[in-house]
Amino acid sequence: MPTSPNESNVDVLVVGAGPAGLMFSHALAKAGINVRVVEKRAEQIAAGQADGVNARSMEILQSYGLAERLLREANQIHQIVFYNPSARGGIERVATVPQNAMTTSRYSFGVTLHQGAIEAIFLDAMKDLGLTVERQTVPVSMHMSKDEAELNDPSAYPVKVVLQKLNALPNEVATETVHAKFVIGADGAHSWVRKSLEIEMEGSQTEYKWGVVDMVSDTDIPDMRSVCIIHSDNGSCFIIPREGDALRLYVQLSDADVMDPSTGRVDPTKIGPTEIFEVARKSLHPYKIATPKEFGWSTVYIIGQRVAAQYSTNNRVFIVGDACHTHSPQAGQGMNASMADSHNLAWKLAQVLRGSADISLLKTYEIERRKFALDLISFDREYAALASSKVSHEEFFQAFEKHVTFTSGLTIQYADSAIVNSTHQSAAKHIIIGQRISPQVLLRVADARPYELHDLIIADTRFKLLVFTGDTSPGQSSQGARVERLAEELHGVLAQLGTDGGWERIVDDITISSRRLANMDYTDVPELLRSHWSKVFVDDVDLAGQHRGSGKAYENFGIQAEGVVVVVRPDGHVGAIFPFDAMQDARVYFAGFMRTKNVQLGDGCSKY
Amino acid sequence: MPTSPNESNVDVLVVGAGPAGLMFSHALAKAGINVRVVEKRAEQIAAGQADGVNARSMEILQSYGLAERLLREANQIHQIVFYNPSARGGIERVATVPQNAMTTSRYSFGVTLHQGAIEAIFLDAMKDLGLTVERQTVPVSMHMSKDEAELNDPSAYPVKVVLQKLNALPNEVATETVHAKFVIGADGAHSWVRKSLEIEMEGSQTEYKWGVVDMVSDTDIPDMRSVCIIHSDNGSCFIIPREGDALRLYVQLSDADVMDPSTGRVDPTKIGPTEIFEVARKSLHPYKIATPKEFGWSTVYIIGQRVAAQYSTNNRVFIVGDACHTHSPQAGQGMNASMADSHNLAWKLAQVLRGSADISLLKTYEIERRKFALDLISFDREYAALASSKVSHEEFFQAFEKHVTFTSGLTIQYADSAIVNSTHQSAAKHIIIGQRISPQVLLRVADARPYELHDLIIADTRFKLLVFTGDTSPGQSSQGARVERLAEELHGVLAQLGTDGGWERIVDDITISSRRLANMDYTDVPELLRSHWSKVFVDDVDLAGQHRGSGKAYENFGIQAEGVVVVVRPDGHVGAIFPFDAMQDARVYFAGFMRTKNVQLGDGCSKY
Repeated sequence: MPTSPNESNVDVLVVGAGPAGLMFSHALAKAGINVRVVEKRAEQIAAGQADGVNARSMEILQSYGLAERLLREANQIHQIVFYNPSARGGIERVATVPQNAMTTSRYSFGVTLHQGAIEAIFLDAMKDLGLTVERQTVPVSMHMSKDEAELNDPSAYPVKVVLQKLNALPNEVATETVHAKFVIGADGAHSWVRKSLEIEMEGSQTEYKWGVVDMVSDTDIPDMRSVCIIHSDNGSCFIIPREGDALRLYVQLSDADVMDPSTGRVDPTKIGPTEIFEVARKSLHPYKIATPKEFGWSTVYIIGQRVAAQYSTNNRVFIVGDACHTHSPQAGQGMNASMADSHNLAWKLAQVLRGSADISLLKTYEIERRKFALDLISFDREYAALASSKVSHEEFFQAFEKHVTFTSGLTIQYADSAIVNSTHQSAAKHIIIGQRISPQVLLRVADARPYELHDLIIADTRFKLLVFTGDTSPGQSSQGARVERLAEELHGVLAQLGTDGGWERIVDDITISSRRLANMDYTDVPELLRSHWSKVFVDDVDLAGQHRGSGKAYENFGIQAEGVVVVVRPDGHVGAIFPFDAMQDARVYFAGFMRTKNVQLGDGCSKY
Repeated sequence: MPTSPNESNVDVLVVGAGPAGLMFSHALAKAGINVRVVEKRAEQIAAGQADGVNARSMEILQSYGLAERLLREANQIHQIVFYNPSARGGIERVATVPQNAMTTSRYSFGVTLHQGAIEAIFLDAMKDLGLTVERQTVPVSMHMSKDEAELNDPSAYPVKVVLQKLNALPNEVATETVHAKFVIGADGAHSWVRKSLEIEMEGSQTEYKWGVVDMVSDTDIPDMRSVCIIHSDNGSCFIIPREGDALRLYVQLSDADVMDPSTGRVDPTKIGPTEIFEVARKSLHPYKIATPKEFGWSTVYIIGQRVAAQYSTNNRVFIVGDACHTHSPQAGQGMNASMADSHNLAWKLAQVLRGSADISLLKTYEIERRKFALDLISFDREYAALASSKVSHEEFFQAFEKHVTFTSGLTIQYADSAIVNSTHQSAAKHIIIGQRISPQVLLRVADARPYELHDLIIADTRFKLLVFTGDTSPGQSSQGARVERLAEELHGVLAQLGTDGGWERIVDDITISSRRLANMDYTDVPELLRSHWSKVFVDDVDLAGQHRGSGKAYENFGIQAEGVVVVVRPDGHVGAIFPFDAMQDARVYFAGFMRTKNVQLGDGCSKY
């Protein structure tokens, strides 16, 4: 197709290099997919914007090998402290709760770090993979083929995008025509991609006006290093501690503070960081907060709650992140939802581009992530109303308790679909099909090394088959024979995968025995269930007793003595659970979205 | 002094860029000290040599911010497995023990990684600090001033070293005369620096001959990912698992294997990796080990056990690492002992060069580290004899149990000296004065963040004052008043330090209360004990219950309700403990090795 030097082909073109675009681009580059990413801004942002990373996002970043640096640079938030109007005037502390009370969380806290520093983590990792962002480059036109056959062929280039370089030299051709297999619009709340697809944002704007300002300031509020949620007679105020000694204030503003009565719109000349800060100072009385030497990033906004009507056109152009959903920033959900969109789509697109998965797999992106965005908006309606209103401590607190689990991101559950099958949920009742699998320490048999399960189910685009074998000790009933048979049948299931090579590129296998480490060698597991010595684990306590929950995998996951096979999707969510006698179901599950080979399977399954 | 372009001054010249030289150079560069490091070898080593890093070395690397990468790259060793001759012929497994059974260890395992990869961690960190190794450069002459006044003046340059560039171009002057304040000989077992100082190695050579070979090989020994200590009728053999799938074999050799009977010396033409491997293969029967496609690094050695008669001349030239001590490599102690030498000396030299400490402080290096080397040799005599002899399982095992604690490096205890004062040991009976302080999770009051104490006592050349305040809750007897008074007296002690500025460059203060987090604000601590909000901690359980031992600091350390002040040296070892009424002793302690200002102290100490 390319006919001139200013025409080119690319597998995936990503528009926008914020957290959503970078999460996506990094994931694809790591998967070895041909990807380009363009961005309007000339420079990385230096401060401000989004800053909250929740427990689930940390797990996701960890699965890409990016959490170490985040944890080194970020501020940790362990507590949320509530202040309410005091009978003596001003505010008083009324309650303190853990930021993340979920016991199944790998990270028992949230972190804050300015968006530019988070973007830098992706940018540096991408650089190591040979991918850099093409800055000052924007799409100016996009055209999609109407040919059904072309649209359904993952190897076709049905999307034509004209890119313009904003900083082209006078003697340079400023435009380039790119033929893309797929285009990702990660270009924010005012998404050009979304607009060219004529996708509507559904929802409405609230009456709530807020200001936000970053700074370093002395204060005698003893909780200023926890999130403070403050209801005062002067309006609400949130304190969000940041990296170093920095603080962010979210400050509720009145119409008088911000509106131009003649136009009914926000008047940006009316209020700046100094005015926002002065409102906060009043709300914080009797506590003192010193006027900082200088203010950092600040802005004023009216909370709107909207979700895009669709997330894709023809499953060839997708939108992710703020292009899909807008809501209030105080709950710190925006960047997390955006990165999770990309995390959900990236492995699907990689498997389709490799020819391993059917292109229909891509439909599940909108199904899963739009449903989540609607839940998020519904949460946000309640949260923003409570944050912006005079409510009793009890009222707010009760609602908050309900929400604190939601904001961790750990309870997102995808509904049944081609890739989520909850038929056999009862076979491992605490592994919730559709949710991300919980962390769990296991012991590797060959070297007795404790391993966090999450460090085994990394984001390498592969499904992880967790084979819980039960106790196959010699003399233990017939479990050994059952596992031998399971191994053979499972390999029948796997053999159908991998149309362009072996199944090992698509599925990684991990075996977890319920025997005791001291009574087991890794060689006791059938050879078909140990492609390498590093693949065999046991559910036993670690030798030093340093790891909470080690030796409780079967108990924590609700796994019966008969054993079970758990399918963890490449994004860490549980796709399905299969008892040993349901390998035919496993075959059907994978055939539902993966391209399969016709494999002769001998005497078939389900004959335990 | 420099008179020509080929003359220069430097504060510290380090000769040798192995683990000892790099640990030292990195520490000094991090401390902002002017340092140069020269090395004979043209390239970083790529494989082989030392590979074992024990639990204490990991703690030390962590204190410099270098453990993360080590843990990412290294292989972990959690178990040691013993094999003995079997009655049925060949060998059989007789016992398995944890590699590190110490419950007070931050790392419950050891790691292996080839020396070149460990050196790369230092080299990259040094590069970030602007320091690179000058390769193919060797000292050819060294001359030290005999002027007492000059030798006692830390700002003088009493050591003249002529360096030669081995790769000088024909038109280049190949030599340079360097005037150094201090010189460090980190140039290995055949140390040129040691020889020019005419320091003798004391000790002797054993009769034990061993070969060592690195490789990747298939084997059916199920424990090949643990350390295997094998006594067979064919001689002893150790299997050491390495990074990736690599293994190292240490193989006991007979005189016939290695010696030239005509000379009585090792004949290097007689035995190579293939021959070493063949001896091992016989010793491992009935287990199989496949001949690898290629062998990695290998060598043959006769175990010798020697310690240098002195570690310094005039405390201006020092030797560290293998230049000081040689012993058998199988216990994996060499690189650890070498890095610990440098860790011990680096902070002392930094404080002397800054003018904060008296030059006499440097004497403690030889006192502390030579004593340790003698202990190491004494351990090694017993260990090497047991490893090289036919002993019963029980005999070896009993001895091993005694040694496994030693090899972790966690129990090294420096004796009383100018910087170790055990007078008040009873005031915190589980904090062993002279040993490194044990890990302990604390909660930071301002943000409820759990912190490992070891991450607070980082290797920044500063002493850490841990002020255990006890319970100062209002209404709790007079502890609040006692702490207020302690704060004032302690500042009297600190005020005498820092002849060229404030004491904050020399001492960091950390306050640890025994109150409950929920009942305490960080502002409850006297201002003199909280230079920043981040300095106030509480001994309470972490909110999520994820950290073993949190909330038990007072119990684990044996601290009484009256509180205590613990002085942790910059290398993590406990220097002294002072009850609140012993601030006069604290004053005397610091004055014993630090340069002090004359400070008026009001009504003095010891009046509780």
